Amino acid sequence: MEKVDTLLVGGVVLPMNEAMDRFDNGAVAVRGDSIVAVGPAETLRQRYEADEVVDCTGQIVLPGLVNAHTHMPMSLLRAMADDLRLDVWLLGYMMPTEREFVTPEFCRLGTLLSCAEMIRGGTTLFADMYYYEADVAAATAEAGMRGVCGQTVMKFPAPDAESYEESLAYTRRFIEEWKGHPLIVPSVAPHAPYTCTDEILQACADLAIEYDVPLQIHILETRQEAEDSWAEFEKKVVERVADLGVFRAKTLAAHCVHVDADQIRILREHNVAVAHNPTSNLKLASGIAPIKEMLERGVKLSVGTDGAASNNDLDMFEEMRLAALLVKGATYDPVVLPAKEALLMATRWGAEALSLGDIAGSLEPGKRADLIVVDRSPLHNAPHFERNPDSIYSQLVYATHASDVQHVMVNGRWLMRDRVLLTLDEDALRAAATDYARRIDAFLEAREGNVLNKLVAIGGLHQEESFEIQVKARAGDTSPLEALTAHPAVEIVKHNHYRQYDTYFLFDDEEMGRVRYREDDFIDENGQPVNVRTRLTYTTPTKEREFDEAVLLSRSRFIAPADRPLRFYREYFQARSECEIHKDRLRWHILYKGVLFYVNYDRMMQPEMGERYIEIKARTWSKTDAEFKAALANEILSDVLAIPAEDRVKTEYVDLCGSAD
Amino acid sequence: MEKVDTLLVGGVVLPMNEAMDRFDNGAVAVRGDSIVAVGPAETLRQRYEADEVVDCTGQIVLPGLVNAHTHMPMSLLRAMADDLRLDVWLLGYMMPTEREFVTPEFCRLGTLLSCAEMIRGGTTLFADMYYYEADVAAATAEAGMRGVCGQTVMKFPAPDAESYEESLAYTRRFIEEWKGHPLIVPSVAPHAPYTCTDEILQACADLAIEYDVPLQIHILETRQEAEDSWAEFEKKVVERVADLGVFRAKTLAAHCVHVDADQIRILREHNVAVAHNPTSNLKLASGIAPIKEMLERGVKLSVGTDGAASNNDLDMFEEMRLAALLVKGATYDPVVLPAKEALLMATRWGAEALSLGDIAGSLEPGKRADLIVVDRSPLHNAPHFERNPDSIYSQLVYATHASDVQHVMVNGRWLMRDRVLLTLDEDALRAAATDYARRIDAFLEAREGNVLNKLVAIGGLHQEESFEIQVKARAGDTSPLEALTAHPAVEIVKHNHYRQYDTYFLFDDEEMGRVRYREDDFIDENGQPVNVRTRLTYTTPTKEREFDEAVLLSRSRFIAPADRPLRFYREYFQARSECEIHKDRLRWHILYKGVLFYVNYDRMMQPEMGERYIEIKARTWSKTDAEFKAALANEILSDVLAIPAEDRVKTEYVDLCGSAD
Repeated sequence: MEKVDTLLVGGVVLPMNEAMDRFDNGAVAVRGDSIVAVGPAETLRQRYEADEVVDCTGQIVLPGLVNAHTHMPMSLLRAMADDLRLDVWLLGYMMPTEREFVTPEFCRLGTLLSCAEMIRGGTTLFADMYYYEADVAAATAEAGMRGVCGQTVMKFPAPDAESYEESLAYTRRFIEEWKGHPLIVPSVAPHAPYTCTDEILQACADLAIEYDVPLQIHILETRQEAEDSWAEFEKKVVERVADLGVFRAKTLAAHCVHVDADQIRILREHNVAVAHNPTSNLKLASGIAPIKEMLERGVKLSVGTDGAASNNDLDMFEEMRLAALLVKGATYDPVVLPAKEALLMATRWGAEALSLGDIAGSLEPGKRADLIVVDRSPLHNAPHFERNPDSIYSQLVYATHASDVQHVMVNGRWLMRDRVLLTLDEDALRAAATDYARRIDAFLEAREGNVLNKLVAIGGLHQEESFEIQVKARAGDTSPLEALTAHPAVEIVKHNHYRQYDTYFLFDDEEMGRVRYREDDFIDENGQPVNVRTRLTYTTPTKEREFDEAVLLSRSRFIAPADRPLRFYREYFQARSECEIHKDRLRWHILYKGVLFYVNYDRMMQPEMGERYIEIKARTWSKTDAEFKAALANEILSDVLAIPAEDRVKTEYVDLCGSAD
Repeated sequence: MEKVDTLLVGGVVLPMNEAMDRFDNGAVAVRGDSIVAVGPAETLRQRYEADEVVDCTGQIVLPGLVNAHTHMPMSLLRAMADDLRLDVWLLGYMMPTEREFVTPEFCRLGTLLSCAEMIRGGTTLFADMYYYEADVAAATAEAGMRGVCGQTVMKFPAPDAESYEESLAYTRRFIEEWKGHPLIVPSVAPHAPYTCTDEILQACADLAIEYDVPLQIHILETRQEAEDSWAEFEKKVVERVADLGVFRAKTLAAHCVHVDADQIRILREHNVAVAHNPTSNLKLASGIAPIKEMLERGVKLSVGTDGAASNNDLDMFEEMRLAALLVKGATYDPVVLPAKEALLMATRWGAEALSLGDIAGSLEPGKRADLIVVDRSPLHNAPHFERNPDSIYSQLVYATHASDVQHVMVNGRWLMRDRVLLTLDEDALRAAATDYARRIDAFLEAREGNVLNKLVAIGGLHQEESFEIQVKARAGDTSPLEALTAHPAVEIVKHNHYRQYDTYFLFDDEEMGRVRYREDDFIDENGQPVNVRTRLTYTTPTKEREFDEAVLLSRSRFIAPADRPLRFYREYFQARSECEIHKDRLRWHILYKGVLFYVNYDRMMQPEMGERYIEIKARTWSKTDAEFKAALANEILSDVLAIPAEDRVKTEYVDLCGSAD
């Protein structure tokens, strides 16, 4: 008799292996962290002596479920804001709350809360994508679950990083720290093609390849993304990402709702795995992913809940059921994705999608012991037909509830027995989560009528580059055109002439930022206005620092078209005060040493009638790039335009009416 | 202090009334079968003294959920056959099993099993549509649930009736027996427009109006139904049903997946309620109902699980969640059907759809005490945000599980306390259901390779009228044309000339029925074959009786196009023996006294070379109509064609080769 730690006997064992075996009075033998044997109970009982024998009569033993795409800490934001337009939900609620609350402690608690829910629902492995991923990983390991933990990188400032360079550096440290952990696989997660520059996508792929870790990315969650990609890059999203070499990494692409046949072919060719998120895609009204086409073309498929803020739970039984149902109704094909395949998506195929097919996803000797035991007796799953061997998959997919899961083991360790969690304190988690909800409620209540919220409600808002470089100086009557033209390192690429009528809305609480309503009158060669554009710019309070005498601003800037009259916005925003700045602006887009800058030559019309200024400006998502451009901007002012240092000013135009109220 | 029986205190009370009140530390007072008061706990505690005070702290008290469309006994067929083509599922599995097993006992047990599952999941009221509805009603009353019990009427023979006349008579008795019961509302359920003749639909509506009971009907579940209706009636389905006056009754229309704008308008104008069945519509690949349009047009909406054979559970939390999700994703509109409205569909709107809005669907003084108490503490629903009063609806719809329901009361009586059923014995139900499943498995196993199954697998099968009237006689050399033309009561509407080559496949077990492969060669005026049609006809064993010397056959007849060679079918069906009958047929479609008959004048080519026969035939779904036509057919033979009684024969052609093997 060979010694093992645990022998599960008497249940229906569904190993979900290639052969799709089924042992009706089956057994699984576990030693240490691994599965030693799977087969008929009689055989295993004769071969193995176990410290613990678990009677699974009336139950099903199968691999733990794999949640292929989620954002663990977001369980703390569950039901915080639902049934809203996507931009209102994201810009008005999720992002401000995340900016305010997402800390290592938040990520730790949210991850533990999600682990508790997942274990209770039979999930043993997940792929996460969030911030402070080292804390997500630590909490996951503490809970005893297996996780692929993806550190988010994107061009916007994130709760855990001022710039993407910081995120990339963090990711590298995170990978080095966690690689080789028995439960955790660190991963790089460039957030999405539309939130990443080409450089970010390439840097993430390089990092994933250097350390041989999985890369996770959101792809084509919305129609908007498809349209924007074509407009901006003249490429389909998947083409662009493929062309950048991202798919050289072991890639898991979440959502893929709006991939067309061409893009499905590319995903298949590069062996990219897709995480299908039917609940979230429906709830956020993103659409219905072409799962039938992906199945037919042989794309590696898995299924995930997405975060609890857009689901609102982490129930993989519901998720695989919805996956199985939705594709049938959407394609009028009742035989596509039968229950057996839906369960494969949530087990073996899921583990393969996470690049963990060698150790998880099925019950096979040598794989880690990640398994669940499901009760067959509840009346919502009675009776049982045994004639057709596939009907047990039907029972699991179409009628089993998360609450039917009795025991859960990960890496050979029991995490739940008889529905009692063994590694987590539910009451403590609930209390801590309640405390967060209370604080978030207070924060959001204080924001009612908040400026950004009001802007979001108007629609059409988009976020601009977060770093602005700016040097500014008093100027004389001579236009800088001659100096620009004369300099060998300058190439003028565009020229405009405007009159700009700006109205700034200022608020009592400076933390609320400010809104600028700008009317740009385009002036033709004869000095006549020929066109007008109005738009709103919202800026959050500025983090400002000097760099080599240039000013480097970092702040969130949001721009929206202003299609209503100024009077409307005046009443709508109810600002404490306003500031009017009118000026005549000559603007050149120039390349200086090949880098794009804007040069403004402004003649004030109000309030400082007749004053003239020169500005050199640039924008970027990259902190490193910002510092590089700041140095160049200084060169332009001193070397190209020969403006003496004492003429520099560091105020913005809005400061000119600082004494207006 | 006023005396009441039960006072529920301390929970969040959501009455789901018009005002959408919310009492955070609320209470509900119950006396007898009714709600006496709903309000703040403090107020009710001061006013009422209760025999039983139930502490609902940390819980939500709300109206019991309303399952607006289901087939209760079908829980006994759960997971019997899934992921199949609709015709295979229906004709190959559901209908044969129902024909074999559906008895009063089956309906009783299946109803009790469904009641147990529904109570455990917080459903207190349902609308059922099945057979032996008196037994469904009795079992429902025994379980203590409230039900609108709809007796099915259709043109096909049903498990509980040989003809629709029997069903109508049964329905009348059923209504008279159960009308006024405190828990049961009897109802008439013409199955669907495509399974009912105009007469059936009208008779059902008349019955519903006569007794003022609700009428239930399936409408436009599939695209096929829309196409067929146009082809057959040159009317859209809802137009046809409206024109027949069906909507004069209080109508609840299930599915309505393929209603267009015109039909939605008609439903609204007639105040027809719609039961939305998202899971079933997806699982059977019927499609996605236009819920957004129906909401916008003000159609009364409710939600139901459909039967457990196509769901596979009766979980109204899942169903309302899917309703809320699906419409968003399908219309790219994230704000349509917010959680609050989804919950209304499953409570107050549901009760209104069942014409029970006066007594159920919300917690209001005077209404029946049908309520549920739901635990808010499970981690899959933590934390709770309280800032937005609507987030509690989000919690209930997007994250609550059926297993969170703690207590259920119907009509003032507790049916479940702390998740223990008080009126039903779960173990006994499970055991009895298991026994049925075992017997059904054996039945279906024995049918493997069954003739009907094989036909279903070929595709294109449809069922013909179940009553055939037939009189037949030996005839002389003279064609009946002259006699037909001469008679004043006969109008000839069509004439054909065929040569018919029939091959009958006969099986050992006569219960398996028989299959005829027929080649019809159409002959032109010059005696030349100009066209050929091949088709299969499957007939089940015939119930035959004489009526006024005509033969009245009642049996199931299925017809399918035969697009493969005879040799294929010969190998495919593996019949015990075959019988070949060839004949030359002159056929007239005549109106005799305004009623359609077929007159065949057949000259045998094989086996009884040269013999001649005359047949008078008619078909109908109605037993009464069959008897009426049988009498007329006799008249035609004797009065019009003057054929003496002694020339009559009662055999069918296939019997001519009775000695073939």
